[in-house]
Amino acid sequence: MCATMKIAIASDHAAFDLKQELARNLREWGHEVIDLGPDSADRVDYPDFGYKLAEAVATGEAERGVALCGSGIGISMAVNRHPGARCALVNDPYSAALSREHNDANVIAMGARLIGPDMARTCLQTFLVAEFEGGRHAGRVAKLTNPPKSTTQQESA
Amino acid sequence: MCATMKIAIASDHAAFDLKQELARNLREWGHEVIDLGPDSADRVDYPDFGYKLAEAVATGEAERGVALCGSGIGISMAVNRHPGARCALVNDPYSAALSREHNDANVIAMGARLIGPDMARTCLQTFLVAEFEGGRHAGRVAKLTNPPKSTTQQESA
Repeated sequence: MCATMKIAIASDHAAFDLKQELARNLREWGHEVIDLGPDSADRVDYPDFGYKLAEAVATGEAERGVALCGSGIGISMAVNRHPGARCALVNDPYSAALSREHNDANVIAMGARLIGPDMARTCLQTFLVAEFEGGRHAGRVAKLTNPPKSTTQQESA
Repeated sequence: MCATMKIAIASDHAAFDLKQELARNLREWGHEVIDLGPDSADRVDYPDFGYKLAEAVATGEAERGVALCGSGIGISMAVNRHPGARCALVNDPYSAALSREHNDANVIAMGARLIGPDMARTCLQTFLVAEFEGGRHAGRVAKLTNPPKSTTQQESA
């Protein structure tokens, strides 16, 4: 397994059970887990937890993040609002590896309604060990960190 | 099929062939296609095309967007930098439907290395006909359009 890391994890209510399970796995693998909530399966809004997670990763409080909701779609949108977060929604280990190798993803998103816990665990393991390839990918990742001004201004849409 | 729409489409080099094929399908289905490029399979950077697509959808120039790259991961990160874009990376029609029903996604992202053209076409069809459910989901979508200020400021990460 990979070196020990500080890993933040967050979900919504639909993925609360999966969050608890993956947090336990991460601790078993020796990582330090920052559980950003929620603390129960009561209804919450996924953007609130996605934004907390993005902030934790972008500020360096956590080295990596795990974002979970019913489909993984909503929370990945929220995390990717932050130019310092690169959140990859994946359903399979090949995507999890590509997200690190090509996109230097620092957050993995998965959907508790879409994949089972064993597949989620395998994707997470792959995400934690795969390494960014740099090279031609580095300039593209730099562009993700510096979106155009029109994008970072809040607009009505 | 659904009502005719203005649909913007963009890709990187890895998904250029899929872009051409889906653009042709969209026109066959009666939609107006705004092809934001690239115009060949020469190497490009996916963030450039993701940002153009996000802008087209967020300003209302296009009603929906289609974002394609090798895995769909990189371009979906780029599109979601814009608070007016809600880009869902999907590999299957169930996710495509959920992205509309729960997240009011206005952009669908897919990976040309991950799914074949028939699956991509089926996801796209589902994305175009599925409707946002509103209700409890509306407040969450509103939060996606108004991320916290820390998120929209450019930070080093």
